[in-house]
Amino acid sequence: MTGPVPGRGIPLGRIAEQLGGTVEGSPDVLVTGVAGIEEAGEGDLTFVANPKYVAALARTRATAVLLAPALERPDGVTAVRVPDPYAAMMMVLRLFDPGPPEVAPGVHATAIVAADVTVPPDGGVGPYVVVERGVVLGAGTRIGAHGFVGEGAALGEACYLHPRVTVARGCRLGNRVVVHSGTVIGADGFGYAPVEGRYHKIPQLGIVDVGDDVEIGANSCIDRATMGATVIGRGTKIDNLVQVAHNARIGRDVAVAAQAGISGSTRVDDGARLGGQAGLVGHIHIGAGATIGAQAGVIGDIPAGETVSGYPARPHRQTLRAEATLRRLPELVKRLRALDPERKSTEEESS
Amino acid sequence: MTGPVPGRGIPLGRIAEQLGGTVEGSPDVLVTGVAGIEEAGEGDLTFVANPKYVAALARTRATAVLLAPALERPDGVTAVRVPDPYAAMMMVLRLFDPGPPEVAPGVHATAIVAADVTVPPDGGVGPYVVVERGVVLGAGTRIGAHGFVGEGAALGEACYLHPRVTVARGCRLGNRVVVHSGTVIGADGFGYAPVEGRYHKIPQLGIVDVGDDVEIGANSCIDRATMGATVIGRGTKIDNLVQVAHNARIGRDVAVAAQAGISGSTRVDDGARLGGQAGLVGHIHIGAGATIGAQAGVIGDIPAGETVSGYPARPHRQTLRAEATLRRLPELVKRLRALDPERKSTEEESS
Amino acid sequence: MTGPVPGRGIPLGRIAEQLGGTVEGSPDVLVTGVAGIEEAGEGDLTFVANPKYVAALARTRATAVLLAPALERPDGVTAVRVPDPYAAMMMVLRLFDPGPPEVAPGVHATAIVAADVTVPPDGGVGPYVVVERGVVLGAGTRIGAHGFVGEGAALGEACYLHPRVTVARGCRLGNRVVVHSGTVIGADGFGYAPVEGRYHKIPQLGIVDVGDDVEIGANSCIDRATMGATVIGRGTKIDNLVQVAHNARIGRDVAVAAQAGISGSTRVDDGARLGGQAGLVGHIHIGAGATIGAQAGVIGDIPAGETVSGYPARPHRQTLRAEATLRRLPELVKRLRALDPERKSTEEESS
Repeated sequence: MTGPVPGRGIPLGRIAEQLGGTVEGSPDVLVTGVAGIEEAGEGDLTFVANPKYVAALARTRATAVLLAPALERPDGVTAVRVPDPYAAMMMVLRLFDPGPPEVAPGVHATAIVAADVTVPPDGGVGPYVVVERGVVLGAGTRIGAHGFVGEGAALGEACYLHPRVTVARGCRLGNRVVVHSGTVIGADGFGYAPVEGRYHKIPQLGIVDVGDDVEIGANSCIDRATMGATVIGRGTKIDNLVQVAHNARIGRDVAVAAQAGISGSTRVDDGARLGGQAGLVGHIHIGAGATIGAQAGVIGDIPAGETVSGYPARPHRQTLRAEATLRRLPELVKRLRALDPERKSTEEESS
Repeated sequence: MTGPVPGRGIPLGRIAEQLGGTVEGSPDVLVTGVAGIEEAGEGDLTFVANPKYVAALARTRATAVLLAPALERPDGVTAVRVPDPYAAMMMVLRLFDPGPPEVAPGVHATAIVAADVTVPPDGGVGPYVVVERGVVLGAGTRIGAHGFVGEGAALGEACYLHPRVTVARGCRLGNRVVVHSGTVIGADGFGYAPVEGRYHKIPQLGIVDVGDDVEIGANSCIDRATMGATVIGRGTKIDNLVQVAHNARIGRDVAVAAQAGISGSTRVDDGARLGGQAGLVGHIHIGAGATIGAQAGVIGDIPAGETVSGYPARPHRQTLRAEATLRRLPELVKRLRALDPERKSTEEESS
Repeated sequence: MTGPVPGRGIPLGRIAEQLGGTVEGSPDVLVTGVAGIEEAGEGDLTFVANPKYVAALARTRATAVLLAPALERPDGVTAVRVPDPYAAMMMVLRLFDPGPPEVAPGVHATAIVAADVTVPPDGGVGPYVVVERGVVLGAGTRIGAHGFVGEGAALGEACYLHPRVTVARGCRLGNRVVVHSGTVIGADGFGYAPVEGRYHKIPQLGIVDVGDDVEIGANSCIDRATMGATVIGRGTKIDNLVQVAHNARIGRDVAVAAQAGISGSTRVDDGARLGGQAGLVGHIHIGAGATIGAQAGVIGDIPAGETVSGYPARPHRQTLRAEATLRRLPELVKRLRALDPERKSTEEESS
């Protein structure tokens, strides 16, 4: 793989210097991209931290490799010795990061921006974007193609909306918020009052309030509050296809994996982590630093620091223990049945 | 919180009158918004129905509170006494409801509307909307920015499509249907005929037929039928990120919570309720008024009125009972094993 | 139901000829559409393969029916005898297939296509589409309204993007790829390095590489790789609201049902099938031809050809057996407890 912005090359020696590593081979080879060991080609830098990949190293087409101290370097392979090749690779990724796709500064000729909205000189509004009246845009904030920012919404500084993001009326984003394509911030919460078998809509008058440094994946939904705000705390990261219902309150530095769902008025405290497809019912409280396993179904409060899994979610150790017992159960039942004095006759009846 | 449309104020006395309540304090204070007790600020009306929030009431910054008859009113707090503060609050929310975001009447200069389509005088087609030939739009129907209505689709009266909704070719919406951002009505059903290990597409020639007063959340998908119609009955409410597959038939006044999935040709009868992330396999029948728990996996018919949960979904009471037994199981097994005459030797072998 | 393109009629005799069937009744009746037996009306062709629908046949309003050899034909019903009515119906559906909605050839006046991009003469770029620089478009490829194709992306021949699809920077689609509305190909993978309780973004520099003849449903997300490529193999079919995380590698002719989720770096081999809402954790391997049940939670490798279900996913037979035991468990426990010599006293204590 060559990086998405081809044609840039960095001498290996310069990379080694930044990593505090030692080159074994020529420091002058040019690195133009990064790749996994199997996929790497001419110009790519790769890494091997695990001894089991040393064999793959002998046949790699990579130009150079970040190599752990203890691993053998095959003949003819150019390497940079670093204490932690994985961590070093993360640093290298940043060197090659072209940043998000460009949104040209200024307002694209086709963007429709209400007369009362000021686009800061270093901000960018892409093609076919619609920005309604009363919207506030912070310095350096960029809105990709087909974006929609509803009346009175406020975006902080250095936000980046990928193409096709909706920020509905009155919602607020902090600084450096990143939102991926297709995500909808501020659709109505799912609130109806049943009267004689029919549902009557409860107006959803609140907003969504997203803190600084939040990133939200693609095609996710964060609903506006009935009253007040649905809150996403500073530094929280949300993956794709996630549902956050009205009046949920997500703390700081929370990680929410893809397709997880958080129901109305539920509170998730700082540093918690939700696995993929996990579901939280409404009006519960997930303590700080709790870990909710993938696909877990949480129907009650979870204490801070607890790790839960399964449905209904229980402490992970309990789930594993119950699961192990369940697997052995048919065999156990068979053996235990032999002890049951009433058993024999029943067996004969049913067979 | 101040409401999304600031600057409007209603004297408290007027609100009390509409609710049939009694003001304790000045009826002249202006209410400009609504909020929960913890978040309320200057101008906000809040409510307390539950005695455990009376303490919070003492320190609220709300301008006034809807208060149940039995609860004590702290000094200096302005209140409206009502029999049911929660129900009263729902009414107040309607007073402050600004309605959906404005779509200006007429056709926006940038909208592309096929020559044979008539936009009713009180209808509205927003910026960058595309409406293809043969489309029928009912009186008062509004289509938000970036909407797409495919060839021959028909929308009834007073529908409201939030920005970025797709209604594909030939699909039909009744009257007063509301659809939130990102939802796709009428993508092809997932139908393939496997022939010698490869999938061959089965053309999806049907439509989606959505009844009156239906509301569909954000980023949901209602697929067109293979033949005939995928049907969403009158008054049904669907949350975000919901999947409704081809030829499913949802009855009237059904509620479907976020991330639930309904497979092909499954029928859900009137008044049923589906919890979040619930999944129904194809070709089954959910009886009228049945309740499907959150995350339930339903693999067979469910009788009318039944409440089910778990995977595979069983009557909720059975799920709870099995679950309770499962929790106690490791302990039980341990004790019962002591009775097993073969046990001792096995124990010694395995340990 | 009449097909989405009304007004076309095919004489029944001509259809029978193509199916190798025999008409019983007039071969001259015109067939204008297809429908299920219950919904069929004037002009529709329907089918009955199952004896239990013969009763419905007597009262159908369909113009003609495809009928299995062994089934009785009610008086007055026009039929075509075919060995396999279901298979025959699939062929008939193709006769009536109007193909995907038209995207006019050439570049719509409102499309924004970078100066260096060549749109092939038989290609089509719809209204309000944005195509960035460096994009390559194959012959016959069409992009529906509001589509977005990012810098340097490459689409093969005869692709069809329904309205509102995002193909982000650098991603590649093979030939004859179909993508439905709202789907996002190439959003950033969910990768962060936690440092002192805060998440630091790991740049996602890879791409998505989609093979020939792939079809992807509506509102799905295929994330770009951290390095290298997230791969969707030739002929694979993906339903709506599916999540495919960074560096996942899906083989050929795989079927992924709605709302399933595949975590990072997981490999799914050729011919596997994933049920709706199934979830796979990261870094595992699903063997060729394996079947993952609906809602299954897979937390480890699955051998080729295996069928698994439940959470955590086990061989389907094991799941059924454990499940059956679990249902009987409360009763068994009750009976077995009677054998426990310590039981009586405990019972008395706790009750």
